[in-house]
Amino acid sequence: MFRFIKKGVNGVFREEHDSVGSLRIPGEAYYGVNAKRAYDNFQITDSRLEPIFIESLAQVKKAGALANLKLGELKPMIGETIIQVADELLEGKLTGDMIVDPIQGGAGTSSNMNINEIIANRGIELLGGEKGQYHLLSPNDHVNKGQSTNDVFPTAGKLTFLKLIDQLLIVLEELADSFKEKSLAFATIQKMGRTQLSDAVPITVGAEFKAYYTVTKRNIKRLTACKEEIRYVNMGGTAIGTGLSAHSQFSQTIIGYLREVTGLDIAVAEDLIDSTQNVEAFGVVSDVLKTIALSSSKIANDIRLLSSGPRTGIGELIIPARQNGSSIMPGKINPVIPEVVTQGAFLVAGNNVTISMAIEGGQLELNAFEPVIFHKLIESFHVLTNTLASFNEHCIKGIQVNASRCQELLEKSTYLTTSLAEYIGYEQAALIAKESLQLNRTVKEVALSKGISNDILVKISK
Amino acid sequence: MFRFIKKGVNGVFREEHDSVGSLRIPGEAYYGVNAKRAYDNFQITDSRLEPIFIESLAQVKKAGALANLKLGELKPMIGETIIQVADELLEGKLTGDMIVDPIQGGAGTSSNMNINEIIANRGIELLGGEKGQYHLLSPNDHVNKGQSTNDVFPTAGKLTFLKLIDQLLIVLEELADSFKEKSLAFATIQKMGRTQLSDAVPITVGAEFKAYYTVTKRNIKRLTACKEEIRYVNMGGTAIGTGLSAHSQFSQTIIGYLREVTGLDIAVAEDLIDSTQNVEAFGVVSDVLKTIALSSSKIANDIRLLSSGPRTGIGELIIPARQNGSSIMPGKINPVIPEVVTQGAFLVAGNNVTISMAIEGGQLELNAFEPVIFHKLIESFHVLTNTLASFNEHCIKGIQVNASRCQELLEKSTYLTTSLAEYIGYEQAALIAKESLQLNRTVKEVALSKGISNDILVKISK
Amino acid sequence: MFRFIKKGVNGVFREEHDSVGSLRIPGEAYYGVNAKRAYDNFQITDSRLEPIFIESLAQVKKAGALANLKLGELKPMIGETIIQVADELLEGKLTGDMIVDPIQGGAGTSSNMNINEIIANRGIELLGGEKGQYHLLSPNDHVNKGQSTNDVFPTAGKLTFLKLIDQLLIVLEELADSFKEKSLAFATIQKMGRTQLSDAVPITVGAEFKAYYTVTKRNIKRLTACKEEIRYVNMGGTAIGTGLSAHSQFSQTIIGYLREVTGLDIAVAEDLIDSTQNVEAFGVVSDVLKTIALSSSKIANDIRLLSSGPRTGIGELIIPARQNGSSIMPGKINPVIPEVVTQGAFLVAGNNVTISMAIEGGQLELNAFEPVIFHKLIESFHVLTNTLASFNEHCIKGIQVNASRCQELLEKSTYLTTSLAEYIGYEQAALIAKESLQLNRTVKEVALSKGISNDILVKISK
Amino acid sequence: MFRFIKKGVNGVFREEHDSVGSLRIPGEAYYGVNAKRAYDNFQITDSRLEPIFIESLAQVKKAGALANLKLGELKPMIGETIIQVADELLEGKLTGDMIVDPIQGGAGTSSNMNINEIIANRGIELLGGEKGQYHLLSPNDHVNKGQSTNDVFPTAGKLTFLKLIDQLLIVLEELADSFKEKSLAFATIQKMGRTQLSDAVPITVGAEFKAYYTVTKRNIKRLTACKEEIRYVNMGGTAIGTGLSAHSQFSQTIIGYLREVTGLDIAVAEDLIDSTQNVEAFGVVSDVLKTIALSSSKIANDIRLLSSGPRTGIGELIIPARQNGSSIMPGKINPVIPEVVTQGAFLVAGNNVTISMAIEGGQLELNAFEPVIFHKLIESFHVLTNTLASFNEHCIKGIQVNASRCQELLEKSTYLTTSLAEYIGYEQAALIAKESLQLNRTVKEVALSKGISNDILVKISK
Repeated sequence: MFRFIKKGVNGVFREEHDSVGSLRIPGEAYYGVNAKRAYDNFQITDSRLEPIFIESLAQVKKAGALANLKLGELKPMIGETIIQVADELLEGKLTGDMIVDPIQGGAGTSSNMNINEIIANRGIELLGGEKGQYHLLSPNDHVNKGQSTNDVFPTAGKLTFLKLIDQLLIVLEELADSFKEKSLAFATIQKMGRTQLSDAVPITVGAEFKAYYTVTKRNIKRLTACKEEIRYVNMGGTAIGTGLSAHSQFSQTIIGYLREVTGLDIAVAEDLIDSTQNVEAFGVVSDVLKTIALSSSKIANDIRLLSSGPRTGIGELIIPARQNGSSIMPGKINPVIPEVVTQGAFLVAGNNVTISMAIEGGQLELNAFEPVIFHKLIESFHVLTNTLASFNEHCIKGIQVNASRCQELLEKSTYLTTSLAEYIGYEQAALIAKESLQLNRTVKEVALSKGISNDILVKISK
Repeated sequence: MFRFIKKGVNGVFREEHDSVGSLRIPGEAYYGVNAKRAYDNFQITDSRLEPIFIESLAQVKKAGALANLKLGELKPMIGETIIQVADELLEGKLTGDMIVDPIQGGAGTSSNMNINEIIANRGIELLGGEKGQYHLLSPNDHVNKGQSTNDVFPTAGKLTFLKLIDQLLIVLEELADSFKEKSLAFATIQKMGRTQLSDAVPITVGAEFKAYYTVTKRNIKRLTACKEEIRYVNMGGTAIGTGLSAHSQFSQTIIGYLREVTGLDIAVAEDLIDSTQNVEAFGVVSDVLKTIALSSSKIANDIRLLSSGPRTGIGELIIPARQNGSSIMPGKINPVIPEVVTQGAFLVAGNNVTISMAIEGGQLELNAFEPVIFHKLIESFHVLTNTLASFNEHCIKGIQVNASRCQELLEKSTYLTTSLAEYIGYEQAALIAKESLQLNRTVKEVALSKGISNDILVKISK
Repeated sequence: MFRFIKKGVNGVFREEHDSVGSLRIPGEAYYGVNAKRAYDNFQITDSRLEPIFIESLAQVKKAGALANLKLGELKPMIGETIIQVADELLEGKLTGDMIVDPIQGGAGTSSNMNINEIIANRGIELLGGEKGQYHLLSPNDHVNKGQSTNDVFPTAGKLTFLKLIDQLLIVLEELADSFKEKSLAFATIQKMGRTQLSDAVPITVGAEFKAYYTVTKRNIKRLTACKEEIRYVNMGGTAIGTGLSAHSQFSQTIIGYLREVTGLDIAVAEDLIDSTQNVEAFGVVSDVLKTIALSSSKIANDIRLLSSGPRTGIGELIIPARQNGSSIMPGKINPVIPEVVTQGAFLVAGNNVTISMAIEGGQLELNAFEPVIFHKLIESFHVLTNTLASFNEHCIKGIQVNASRCQELLEKSTYLTTSLAEYIGYEQAALIAKESLQLNRTVKEVALSKGISNDILVKISK
Repeated sequence: MFRFIKKGVNGVFREEHDSVGSLRIPGEAYYGVNAKRAYDNFQITDSRLEPIFIESLAQVKKAGALANLKLGELKPMIGETIIQVADELLEGKLTGDMIVDPIQGGAGTSSNMNINEIIANRGIELLGGEKGQYHLLSPNDHVNKGQSTNDVFPTAGKLTFLKLIDQLLIVLEELADSFKEKSLAFATIQKMGRTQLSDAVPITVGAEFKAYYTVTKRNIKRLTACKEEIRYVNMGGTAIGTGLSAHSQFSQTIIGYLREVTGLDIAVAEDLIDSTQNVEAFGVVSDVLKTIALSSSKIANDIRLLSSGPRTGIGELIIPARQNGSSIMPGKINPVIPEVVTQGAFLVAGNNVTISMAIEGGQLELNAFEPVIFHKLIESFHVLTNTLASFNEHCIKGIQVNASRCQELLEKSTYLTTSLAEYIGYEQAALIAKESLQLNRTVKEVALSKGISNDILVKISK
């Protein structure tokens, strides 16, 4: 049942060994025994690490080599070779050799070793050796110098999410702009407001879009603020945050380079033990995505409701026709774009539960479930970003108001009784509302028949 | 910040002791040192164990004494006294002394010891002793004879849920009956069917209520079937399912009595080790509640949509007015009953997550989180049963159709194009639909203008 | 099956009426027809509104009367009477007449009307009238003057949560203090660090408690920050945020009084339409509680693991014995306090899902599901606050280290190979680790046998 | 930011049109205007429909053509051509033209039209026409004859899940077998049983694996039973279950062919309206997966605990070393396989929430959120199946017991006091347990020192 993505092999293999034993590796592969074992162990999702995450890993490795060079922890030739290969990875090369499944046991060791091995083997090649001759350039002793999966993996995660936040912010800003434009364009169109799907009091279409704008801006603020949650990385912590084996200046040095390499505003966490074992900040980011998703789905649902019809629904809004809505019902057009926003929101909310469970499940000095946290959080980012971009581009921007429909409904309603209550009291006004509905007459007609003065009726109609 | 529910004390105390040390207990209290320590440790929910759960615990204790008497494990006077006090508890007496919080550490030990102590102290009283003279009747050695919290607590849970299932089944059957009645009453009323909130093809109101009936009956079947999940109890398993300290015939004997005492169709689990440590069956029950809740909320949402208005919504259904809908808008009536069904569904779905996490968190020979599982599952049962009873009584039974509104909307729509496609093809029909909407003309008018024969139009209108 | 909490009646009733019709109300009842209908409609949870929420509602009513007096919207006698009754409510009087279920259809209308009616009827009494003579003091026209459930209910919710945040902050600060104290007390005790439940490298017990301290402080920061989420209230928005029927200065005026009455730092929301319909800020508060809960459960789980035993577990920590752990196993002591922390966390995480679903379900100008949001969020606050207070008081403060056990385990382990790798490379060090485990010899012994110099071994042992 | 998977184009395009307008389609593409619009609208997940789902769609199309041929609804040449192309799809051909995103608005219309268009265009080619000449073979009028997305899409989902259940059953049976084998192999090895991570009473290792076996078998039963949930399909229902446009015998006829084509035991649903709008059965399947996942994660967690160490944990079990556990700590081996089982469980539990929300969100005659339900349920199946297969193959099968470690721990414990309590009472036994722990002496030693007869000690030691 598994769909194995086997490396093509030209009949040439090399033998690699580790604590577990030895293993044949395809001769042309840049990955090594650690990645191959992980590949064999974890055939889980039929997918690979996301390119943006591989990029972040490569940035860590590059900054690590720069720091080790600066501190004299690596010989120049070794360090420069690592940097060179990291740059190749940053250009998108060699990434086909990142073969491990994003859901993997071991808190990211497989991912870290996979890139360590690629860099080592490609580096060995550049140094004139044969792949697998790790005495020339070792995945552990050189590429991973001063590092541990315990710091590399969560740091790469944080870099990734900082980048994804920026992508999402762009989409949210564009969406907010569209809501604002619409709120201005529809500022004077009156329509019925509804609470609990029941007629309430009038409002303008513009005010509704203004509310969509306001909540979106608030979400932008939340998302921006949550960068603070993940800008503190634990590089230099190595094993469980002790800093064991790393140069005493490694932490500060690598952060400097990492800021340069990534352009991101990161800093060293104060308590490295804490920042190695506690990963709740990723959950906070997921929570913010959930909030954005829920708010956006509420808006999407509203737009579906308000554009329902065309003939037997509310029909106050007209959304762009994007595709045929039915394989059997000719001419049917459905609100497919808002629907996908809501589906995206459900996905993000479910992933939030997965991530919560993984955070709670952490034990002692490390959270072994970071891989599923990262995999699902990346998915949440992509799906949310993509659904909202589609929402803006394919729905909000082209939305129109059926003003005559708005007016028609407004005139049919009994909303005037709310204003009337100020003059004649809630109880009397309620009787007029009831009679208006029962007799199918307007509020004004019933009010006049009850002896309410025309003056009052003029005032409340303004 | 805690709201302590302290036992009133007449200045008289007795001293009790346990492994931890000694403790003053109010003289009139039937509970003892174990319950009091638990009370002090767990001030969590400001609530007590549910009466129905206390009843189940008392039934276990009664059946246990009957079994021990039969097997000669308890002296007649001791055994009969225990039974007498258990009967008092079953009459609702003494339950004020069940002081422990439903959310408690310790997998139910506090609840079990609370009832053991009440039975012991009340029994001692009946035997002419002073409360606390446990050599006369011991909570552990006599009341708990052949038992352990490991078997008593989950068994009491299963009894409780079997009873709660029966209560919910009654409500569901009544609800299904109402849906059926309505489906018959509205069998011939045509209305527009909608998919994705967009006009689709006609349907009868009766067919809609028939679908509500069908899904409700299916849920009844699921709920009935899930009794099988929890009818196997682990009495006789004692500590971790080993049966240690219990008479070899205890398991079979107590089950016989428990069936008599409760009237429930229970049996002994085959693998007592498994049934002590694995509690996923409670999760399955919670899942069924969730399914019922989600289905019911979907129906409630539909009814809110179809009754929306009264003037600016769909307005095909008229639901009973149950209360004023607004403190400011006179005459406003809201769909408050369906709204509460949906809220109940959200609660049940959230509790399901709590329960899932608790099941996953079980370790080794016992699940320490049974208390929160039981507390939330009981809440889910109560809320779901109550919301659905209210739904049936206060909404479904009194629902009416606004047939003229149904007809009005039907006539405005373009549904005929679906049938038309059989004769002229999907693409041509789609053009007619589009033109009909754009020109605000009926499908027939447009079709005739396109040269479609009247014969065809007569056929598709039938 | 319902447990009705009926009002005791002395045979005397009064008749009240509303849009729905007329209804008999117990003569002594301060609540009126709206509350009674809600009571009949919603028998859902067998509980009442939380005292802290009733207090917040009363504060809104008091501030409302003060504002209306100031603005000349209420006659002095009317306004002052309302204030007088609100003060009675704030002293805890009359709250028995708040009979509505916290889970109710209608977005809080029942709660708002219940307090409006109590204030009106008690006020009428004070004014010398008979209960029900609403022309003297009307629940809608006077008590609710310038208000709507749409603004009163969410505002009362926000006040409530601001208070509950402060309560929880106290508990969290105390807990953080305890962690800090322990981190200092245990600062020099070495022990084995573990990742993925497997031996890693040494750490101090103090460093572990320091990490607990750090994450707790971070959560305090998050909780403090989220006050900003809910300090903007929508008083003055009335129906759907339009401000209809309210004096143009009402919004600013009532906020001033509300700040005085509550002592809370609240402000008026900028976009009242938005702040009436979008309730995602409550979800953000729930998210923060979830984060605290998950972090705390992780700590509780760690403490259970590290104190496991006493003889066959890890046994590095000794937690206070709080109660007998078993009804059958003598002398058994269980980690009941940490267990209840985890159960609380599961509850909070489940409630978060309920709240998320309710937020997403909001429609158009109002979220009809606020009642369940508030009910569950209050529960989450109480349970989290109570479990963490118990955690601190009954577990963390009394925690001790079994230093000899820590030392014993440390000596058995192979952690030295990590430092060794810096000198002899990862691959050689791995072989030594493997051999050490297989032969059951110390790392030093094996290293010496492999010819590693004693100098190196001395260095890495420091 | 989107990673567009554009169709390679040789500079040749054709023009297609629909209700929305006209669109350029790459000349070589078999998909048409509907799929292309959907592709442009939904760039959400960067993935495609799962092959197993495409297969199910193709089987529906084949059975549909067979039925229409039989009923004379399609001309032989048309019908046979459709069958021929469906067979090509079943051989895995043409699937590259299934370009729509699995998460799509529109309840599956895009997926249905994508395959309709592929079949039409490839069929036109076979018939000697040019792609796009839909008068020769129409996606709607011929390929979709008697069908609607409303029935095709959920039916394809049910076929898919029936197949996936069978795949998972195989893995579960193998896992159960392994647990059974281990339970027999370890049947006589005594070890300490633990509740709440605290020493309880002895048990055999075999009994523990027996419990894992029992719960796994129970889950197999549940999974098998839930086939009944999804074997009733709504083919023939067409638009919203009305059967509009389909031949009166179509439903029964297509089911017969579908049984043949798929080999699955499916039947027609009784209430087609219900089975079109209510999709809760998919949630029930998801619930069963969740139950399996939670149970399995509990077992995985146990195995991680029992194999913790090697030196500073419990160490009773030895699991196969699968890969190096650390990039920095030489020789470290982690329980990576059980860890991935738990991660899989978190994913399945989160997806369950997504699916629940989607089920609740269904409105009126259709659930618009089926695409996300299917996408996530397929993911849950794959991840659960793959993690459990890995669990069995890479962990359970190779598990060994460290019998001497089991014995060592057993001897250190105080479990004898539970048996002792039968002879000397719970209270006395508790004192002995306490003293044994405090003085670090064995239970026997302390008991003898308290004057307990040697006879009793011999009896309880058996």
